Amino acid sequence: MKIKVSHTGKNNPPAGGKKSKKTVAKKINTNSELRQDIVTGDWVVIATGRAKRPEDFANIEYSIHKLDSDTENCLFCDPVKSGQEKDTLIYSRDDGDWTLRVFPNKYPAFSRGRVPKSLSEGPYFGMTGTGYHEIIVTRDHFNHLPDLTDIEVAEVLDAFQDRYLDLMNRKSVNYITIFHNYGKEAGASIAHPHSQLIAIPVISPYIRQELKGAELYYRSNKKCAYCMMAEYESKKRTRIVFENEKFIAHCPFSSRSAFEIWVMPKKHNPYFERITNEDKLELGEALKNALLAIKRTANNPPYNFYIHTSPCDGKDYPHYHWHIEILPHTSTWAGFELETGIEISMIEPEKAAKALRDSLKN
Amino acid sequence: MKIKVSHTGKNNPPAGGKKSKKTVAKKINTNSELRQDIVTGDWVVIATGRAKRPEDFANIEYSIHKLDSDTENCLFCDPVKSGQEKDTLIYSRDDGDWTLRVFPNKYPAFSRGRVPKSLSEGPYFGMTGTGYHEIIVTRDHFNHLPDLTDIEVAEVLDAFQDRYLDLMNRKSVNYITIFHNYGKEAGASIAHPHSQLIAIPVISPYIRQELKGAELYYRSNKKCAYCMMAEYESKKRTRIVFENEKFIAHCPFSSRSAFEIWVMPKKHNPYFERITNEDKLELGEALKNALLAIKRTANNPPYNFYIHTSPCDGKDYPHYHWHIEILPHTSTWAGFELETGIEISMIEPEKAAKALRDSLKN
Repeated sequence: MKIKVSHTGKNNPPAGGKKSKKTVAKKINTNSELRQDIVTGDWVVIATGRAKRPEDFANIEYSIHKLDSDTENCLFCDPVKSGQEKDTLIYSRDDGDWTLRVFPNKYPAFSRGRVPKSLSEGPYFGMTGTGYHEIIVTRDHFNHLPDLTDIEVAEVLDAFQDRYLDLMNRKSVNYITIFHNYGKEAGASIAHPHSQLIAIPVISPYIRQELKGAELYYRSNKKCAYCMMAEYESKKRTRIVFENEKFIAHCPFSSRSAFEIWVMPKKHNPYFERITNEDKLELGEALKNALLAIKRTANNPPYNFYIHTSPCDGKDYPHYHWHIEILPHTSTWAGFELETGIEISMIEPEKAAKALRDSLKN
Repeated sequence: MKIKVSHTGKNNPPAGGKKSKKTVAKKINTNSELRQDIVTGDWVVIATGRAKRPEDFANIEYSIHKLDSDTENCLFCDPVKSGQEKDTLIYSRDDGDWTLRVFPNKYPAFSRGRVPKSLSEGPYFGMTGTGYHEIIVTRDHFNHLPDLTDIEVAEVLDAFQDRYLDLMNRKSVNYITIFHNYGKEAGASIAHPHSQLIAIPVISPYIRQELKGAELYYRSNKKCAYCMMAEYESKKRTRIVFENEKFIAHCPFSSRSAFEIWVMPKKHNPYFERITNEDKLELGEALKNALLAIKRTANNPPYNFYIHTSPCDGKDYPHYHWHIEILPHTSTWAGFELETGIEISMIEPEKAAKALRDSLKN
């Protein structure tokens, strides 16, 4: 191969090249910061040289702003009429009208029920994808979680718990994920507000990593990492978005995306499904306010949230601490993030938290 | 809290609810498959009930189809005129005109050079984000990598190696990521073809996981996992997209996205930077054909590719095996993927590979 090249930098030894370094030094931002997640050990980059101010997020247009207002053809406004699967749970008002329904996903990512069979091919392994995939739908087509009352949000949490308790002891179920996609850019294919529950036979890599990290942290510090975080943030207050008696919503020190918020119980508890009715009301208030703050501050962006909780594989996870993570989609994961798993955040969590906090004062 | 509920499924014991299960059983797809990555242990779901045929991807419209054809205001058509940083490398033709340039990113995610300083706040840790962030630009505004000749692609690989060798021994550098974003949905903010290199002080979580997995695999099997994969795929041929003497391009058994392709050297080698000139030509041919197959099969979708190679932290990684991963953006990562790290793929890798392979016959 003959590639014609003229190098301007190649043969400079590492210590050399000082001349050209000087030329550009004044243009280079030096405030980039690497922050480590104390549980997983993962890194994020807070690249303040590329940073945006909170106001810069206020004018971004998302597809959510052009949402289909056609309720007539909505699959979830009347799930029975649109031929969805039979409900596994319905919540109703006194007059008999429904407020929330849960039914199996018509196009499940996992097939119902049976015990998974092992598969193998050459050096590879797998298993049949058995599990449960359900949809949790609230009644109104236009009112999303931040638009509901605290009690209506608590009702959704109640349904999460109800279905969790029903599915957790089934044979093929070792982990249950509960998540919510808002907006097309966040993967929602149906505009009507809905959450999803997927009960699977394997423990997901992210949870495995957090379980391991939480245990290691406990062994080193004789304290739960998340309890430590909640206490520190509650005292420090720079990253707090909302707080009530039982829950704390804050932008994590090592936020992976702009306006990321974690909602955590202040009292140590590894298991979401053990949440009490009183706690659900408090969590409803905290979750609603966190989502409302994001909606107000970042011009109603698409977002995902999900519950991270202990597996239901029959083992104990005393050092884990369940919580909800809310990830707004204000930027695209590109090559660097996909390659490294290191996320580049464009705004300091402290600035994001202040803007989010302030938005709730109005 | 008094939430009015009427349950239709709550109190069914796990073994119960058989009646409603029967009612819906015939509608439920049972072909979902969980597949495990033999190196990392991560899972993917091949959800064939939601599966698409290769042809279904041929009509999706991406923003790339509406690309800005304005070369006049392009920042990379004439990097000197547009005020980019000073080149660190230029490749030129005999007539003196440039064919490829490398220069520092004007808005780097990492600040130049200095040794990182530790940061701490309460229970948290971090460090200053020092490192190098460079842009590798090819000359033509419209011709992307699949449109170039094998030799032109090899020239890009040569530049990757050149910059890698220059930066790998610098003080703050322990890992170098090289990646390419094509299309807005894949995070490219400038239409002109360009790759990026980021040299950082920390080893990324994904690489750490692969290094660990590769070592464990070697210990158990007395063979490199990637060598095993390359040999098996070359023999089996169902997932092959392209193969030449030195490289193999295949859709991995546990593909995370539709039309994902890995390009691997057949001969064991942990270090990309040790690639020979002859190998660069062969890799150029394999990479070009892999990208061309994706362009033809999935209607020119956005994609990212990146090199996974051993860290340059002074340690040896004899059991790792460098390779390129190409991830087309044919779907959105939503709540499930973000929560669990388990990806749901809509097409079997075997079907994807056949369509990709066939596209190269034309």
